[in-house]
Amino acid sequence: MRQTQLFTKTRREAPADEVSKNAQLLIRAGFIHKEMAGAYDLLPLGLRVIEKIRGIIREEMNAIGGQELHMTTLQGPELWEKTGRFDDAVVDNWFKTKLTNGTELGIANTHEEPITAMLTHHINSYKDLPAYVYQFQTKFRNELRAKSGIMRAREFLMKDFYSFNRTEEDFKAFYEKAAEAYTRIFMRAGIGNVTYRTVAAGGTFTTGFTDEFQTISDAGEDIIYVDKEKGIAVNKEVYNDDTLAQYGLDKASMVEEKSIEVGNIFPLGTKYPDAMGLTIKDENGEQQQVHMGSYGIGLGRLMGTVVEVLSDEKGIVWPASIAPFGVHLVSMTSNDEVVVAYADALYEELTASGVEVLYDDRDARAGEKLADADLIGIPTRILIGKDTISSGAVEVVDRATAVVKKVTRDELLSHMGSVASAEIAG
Amino acid sequence: MRQTQLFTKTRREAPADEVSKNAQLLIRAGFIHKEMAGAYDLLPLGLRVIEKIRGIIREEMNAIGGQELHMTTLQGPELWEKTGRFDDAVVDNWFKTKLTNGTELGIANTHEEPITAMLTHHINSYKDLPAYVYQFQTKFRNELRAKSGIMRAREFLMKDFYSFNRTEEDFKAFYEKAAEAYTRIFMRAGIGNVTYRTVAAGGTFTTGFTDEFQTISDAGEDIIYVDKEKGIAVNKEVYNDDTLAQYGLDKASMVEEKSIEVGNIFPLGTKYPDAMGLTIKDENGEQQQVHMGSYGIGLGRLMGTVVEVLSDEKGIVWPASIAPFGVHLVSMTSNDEVVVAYADALYEELTASGVEVLYDDRDARAGEKLADADLIGIPTRILIGKDTISSGAVEVVDRATAVVKKVTRDELLSHMGSVASAEIAG
Repeated sequence: MRQTQLFTKTRREAPADEVSKNAQLLIRAGFIHKEMAGAYDLLPLGLRVIEKIRGIIREEMNAIGGQELHMTTLQGPELWEKTGRFDDAVVDNWFKTKLTNGTELGIANTHEEPITAMLTHHINSYKDLPAYVYQFQTKFRNELRAKSGIMRAREFLMKDFYSFNRTEEDFKAFYEKAAEAYTRIFMRAGIGNVTYRTVAAGGTFTTGFTDEFQTISDAGEDIIYVDKEKGIAVNKEVYNDDTLAQYGLDKASMVEEKSIEVGNIFPLGTKYPDAMGLTIKDENGEQQQVHMGSYGIGLGRLMGTVVEVLSDEKGIVWPASIAPFGVHLVSMTSNDEVVVAYADALYEELTASGVEVLYDDRDARAGEKLADADLIGIPTRILIGKDTISSGAVEVVDRATAVVKKVTRDELLSHMGSVASAEIAG
Repeated sequence: MRQTQLFTKTRREAPADEVSKNAQLLIRAGFIHKEMAGAYDLLPLGLRVIEKIRGIIREEMNAIGGQELHMTTLQGPELWEKTGRFDDAVVDNWFKTKLTNGTELGIANTHEEPITAMLTHHINSYKDLPAYVYQFQTKFRNELRAKSGIMRAREFLMKDFYSFNRTEEDFKAFYEKAAEAYTRIFMRAGIGNVTYRTVAAGGTFTTGFTDEFQTISDAGEDIIYVDKEKGIAVNKEVYNDDTLAQYGLDKASMVEEKSIEVGNIFPLGTKYPDAMGLTIKDENGEQQQVHMGSYGIGLGRLMGTVVEVLSDEKGIVWPASIAPFGVHLVSMTSNDEVVVAYADALYEELTASGVEVLYDDRDARAGEKLADADLIGIPTRILIGKDTISSGAVEVVDRATAVVKKVTRDELLSHMGSVASAEIAG
């Protein structure tokens, strides 16, 4: 895409009320726009990142047998009254609204009840299990304070996955597969080296432990204790001798860290299937309970976490896997026809070979272009200047390390073309 | 996908309160699930159709210069008060909710105000125009009665596109390009031959005419008068001698039809830019107004319209372009190992060559499988039975015409493979 055609501009300043680094950088670089505290529009660059994240998550969820669907946001009270969760005293962050006839509706903050109830129309026999379903759907949560930028929002896109198994053993085997898929997701999104599967309290869903995936960051609202060698962590909530003994951990090896919860997986037992009447007939025609689990990842929170963890003083540093574009092509002068023609031709060739290129073709000073490119954070930058014409080599700059390589145009096209083909095939 | 792994089942009956043909068929075939009147979950088959529709629309919107973004659903009152549209007496189908501090919020039913206001942060100069932005976003409308299945819902996925031009002439030129893109979308979605660009009243947005795209169908809530030769229609609302004269139409050639509004395009003038303070500086540094248009298509309504128009007494008939799968492979016997092995191998080969296959590998009677296949409506069906093994030919059945062809396995694979490659390349 030509930058002259991208409507967003970078800004020097984020809104004064925006205190979080993630939202400050994402607003300044033109990825998001703040509608109100806890509600952000995704502008073209931000939507591209979210779509990359969605693609990674979708692949991993499909690989473990997930079937994608899309539930409604509007929720009638009937299903939620069966579990007592329509009551604001039980779930204190509902947004609610009303039909014109006065019936109160919920604006979904989660989907256990409707997904389970919907399945009663399709699942009746042990032969129908396992069933694994997931969606990317906006959740609405009436947070009292929303102050962490896109990390704790009132409106946010979430991937929620629900597993339904015949036995607790089947459930546990699947739960481990899901945990492995989560590990792959955070690895692929570029924060695998600072993200730990973390023992956590059961919360409102279950009495046993649950698992969180926590990413070490000073912006985090959680405290965890990490055994970095074993690659496992314990949330402060349940950090005690009993927990350590149960997981074979030694206090001496545990390091305290602030962290961001980027995902969680929950055993839900038979609570929701029981309440919604989701049962199966076994081989003898007898009704049996169904064992459920849930598995969440907030896509905006993941984007924000990557920004918190990987940015530097100049701006954002995207991993290639979720960057809005793979290459930022910068024409260093806009008043030299030969340079412009060279850059134009390279843009066309790279794009034609499948590389996603943002092309800074603006009539602006080189210094401004480079500062914007640092802020936007595309991983590979290609600079075209007068030198390029005389030397026949382009400068390739790595955003993360600032390492500069000079390569010929043919080397560049051959390398980039093969990377793009591998991505298309992959 | 193997049908034994698809969790949805077909049903003999739709819910008793469901009177519309589109929702009845889509529910019975397992594409959607009704949460309440006017709010439907998209199950895996339904989501696949919506994603195909989204892909077509996205291509056409990008081709006319659209930049995709995603606005929030939660809407603060400030922007809407500037146009008077937060008032329930002005916009009578708002869903509203409240923050914990009591502030009333709107749940977006359209996005003119926030999109225009957001752009004030990025657009200041005549050099920044034109700007074309669009999104796929759920709209919420508090309809008094929601009775037409997925055609008039309380919650529905909409593509809304907004154009911002420097002059009225620029706007008009773009408006015609957008109209052409709409014509291509409905053609590609399989209803081009019964869909007409239709002169309509301005509604609340403008005092001049606007354009609707109307599809002839007995399920429609609108009445239009069509000149089929000229390929143009007039909505009953504005069907009078003045309108006919203005468009060079003759009453004698106009045929009255019931129709479904599948899309609309609106000139909005300078109303929203003026109200939100979106202006541009011209070459002389003087502030100038911005000319806006909006362009909507409901994705669920388009899916429902296709079902209304193309279904027959046996079920749905999808056009290949938006079918959930391209091929329905049916193994006609599940107790013959040779037949099952043949079908399994064909499934693997077709899938590997890029064909999207739903493979009915269920242990069920052939008659039940064929009835389900008719109901689900995948355009091409491949039947594998004992005959296939003895004759070396598979039966290929066209869902729309019921025409049967016998082809060898090699012919089939070579034909299907090239279709799939063309689609991937296309």
